[in-house]
Amino acid sequence: MTDAPKDIESLIEVMARLPGLGPRSARRAVLHLIKRRGQLMRPLAEAMTRVADTARECLNCGNIGTADLCPICSDDRRANGQICVVEDVADLWAMERGGAFQGRYHVLGGTLSALDDIGPDDLRIPKLIDRVRGEGATEVILALNATVDGQTTAHYIAGEIEGLGVSVTSLAQGVPIGGELDYLDDGTISAALKARKTL
Amino acid sequence: MTDAPKDIESLIEVMARLPGLGPRSARRAVLHLIKRRGQLMRPLAEAMTRVADTARECLNCGNIGTADLCPICSDDRRANGQICVVEDVADLWAMERGGAFQGRYHVLGGTLSALDDIGPDDLRIPKLIDRVRGEGATEVILALNATVDGQTTAHYIAGEIEGLGVSVTSLAQGVPIGGELDYLDDGTISAALKARKTL
Ligand SMILES: [Zn+2]
Ligand SMILES: [Zn+2]
Repeated sequence: MTDAPKDIESLIEVMARLPGLGPRSARRAVLHLIKRRGQLMRPLAEAMTRVADTARECLNCGNIGTADLCPICSDDRRANGQICVVEDVADLWAMERGGAFQGRYHVLGGTLSALDDIGPDDLRIPKLIDRVRGEGATEVILALNATVDGQTTAHYIAGEIEGLGVSVTSLAQGVPIGGELDYLDDGTISAALKARKTL
Repeated sequence: MTDAPKDIESLIEVMARLPGLGPRSARRAVLHLIKRRGQLMRPLAEAMTRVADTARECLNCGNIGTADLCPICSDDRRANGQICVVEDVADLWAMERGGAFQGRYHVLGGTLSALDDIGPDDLRIPKLIDRVRGEGATEVILALNATVDGQTTAHYIAGEIEGLGVSVTSLAQGVPIGGELDYLDDGTISAALKARKTL
């Protein structure tokens, strides 16, 4: 495919399987790395090995950390009764960048999907129910993506939690701060209109 | 930035410096790798270390190989008197995928650029002149990008080779196979019109 040495060919093939990289950008990235093998490629390989050696999923919430419990689950100040349910660790990171949430998280590891044959037991849903009971949660905030699968999953979880005496909320939908209407999809605009408020 | 363990933060930062990946796709890629640390992350780290250990630039043409001379420069069947000059190894790979060129290459390692202060001696131009004399080349094919810097570099090289008794050619410009006019930039259409042929 590239006439490059076999090791380079297979490095490109592995790189091209990363999300966000196709064959062309994998080739560019590998050439970039080869040109900077001392300053960039070796440190990157070492960083990957180190992370592969140390990273693990939090037994409680599914966040990525380096111990049985992640820093958030180990921090008593975050035991405020709120559990924010997200699909993925990337979403947890996005919430933490926002800095507005002070409680704990629960990472589902995906969404329910009939198409991909993903059911409740394939996600961290049973563990969530255990936590709601065991941690004395007062509010479960569903911060799932505004996709069909995300919303299906939100409704399923809301149904499972119903009757446990915990309030279930979800993120407000609307126009993002600084969002220009012209660039938003129609669904966002309709949802924002429905949820309109008196000024 | 992500509230992730320090090793993961720095892995994301290094990944985000790769061409084609920004911070967001670097975060996604790293999470993808962590989820597949056994099957994907370790093999990737090992492949990088292996390539960092073995890859080197061909002393003759600048192609990436694993020995003093790359496979193309070591292959006598490719000594047909043609030298195809490209900016980058990625362009050499693209030409080889095409499979139409049977000669040897010369990888400049960039283009002349007043803005970036890149002169002839920063590229592999002196070595090209040596090769044209030493290898008894009959034709130098300039396969540089159709950018301002690429074309400036092509003209400079053509001037340097003039008088060495070697023909200097460049890739034809025109409408790509399957290209729809509506999607092409104006320069391409004008160039294709100027170079029009009688059917
Ligand atoms: Zn945790
Ligand atoms: Zn070579």
